[in-house]
Amino acid sequence: MDTAERPYFETHVFCCTNVRPPGHKRGCCAEGGSEKLRDYMKARVKELGLPSTRVNSAGCLDRCELGPVMVIYPEGIWYGYRTRDDIDEILETHLVGGGRVERLRLTPDQIPPKG
Amino acid sequence: MDTAERPYFETHVFCCTNVRPPGHKRGCCAEGGSEKLRDYMKARVKELGLPSTRVNSAGCLDRCELGPVMVIYPEGIWYGYRTRDDIDEILETHLVGGGRVERLRLTPDQIPPKG
Repeated sequence: MDTAERPYFETHVFCCTNVRPPGHKRGCCAEGGSEKLRDYMKARVKELGLPSTRVNSAGCLDRCELGPVMVIYPEGIWYGYRTRDDIDEILETHLVGGGRVERLRLTPDQIPPKG
Repeated sequence: MDTAERPYFETHVFCCTNVRPPGHKRGCCAEGGSEKLRDYMKARVKELGLPSTRVNSAGCLDRCELGPVMVIYPEGIWYGYRTRDDIDEILETHLVGGGRVERLRLTPDQIPPKG
């Protein structure tokens, strides 16, 4: 990897914060409190002083039924989460420890049910 | 890479569409037309039938002065762009061809001027 290929952020987290109207059959991540959970994650990353780590909002990641969801790059690992405790576990195990939170992890074959 | 590590999207593009108030000293990607350019890119990806490719909006990617900006994962390559022609070149050269658009590329050492 040459210098130009060095990542700008070593760890880039995208939390879906898409909002759909109440009652939409797919639901939406916002319905599960994704905005507040993203805010919490951003604040904790700052408090923990994690280097070269950014937490961003993203538009619909198209896995609505499994949400709130996030994807962490460059590793491309997805999580579904519900609570601050879930976020804490992702921070400690994945972002700090370099591991995976298997109980929250979404696998590529978890396709949302359609219709 | 085991099956679980296979990416859900082979190519995941995040276009910053953050909006700041007019006159903000850092500017913002929305000021450069990022929403319309993202819409154009989404439409072209669909028309081209690019497999396992998703184009998303993102919140502020913190490189405002270089914007509109996008980052493409998992490769972690950043581009600054202004026009539909720029988007077309990124689509053809990077997403279809697997290359890099050197004239639009942002390198990790391009730090926005502060203050």
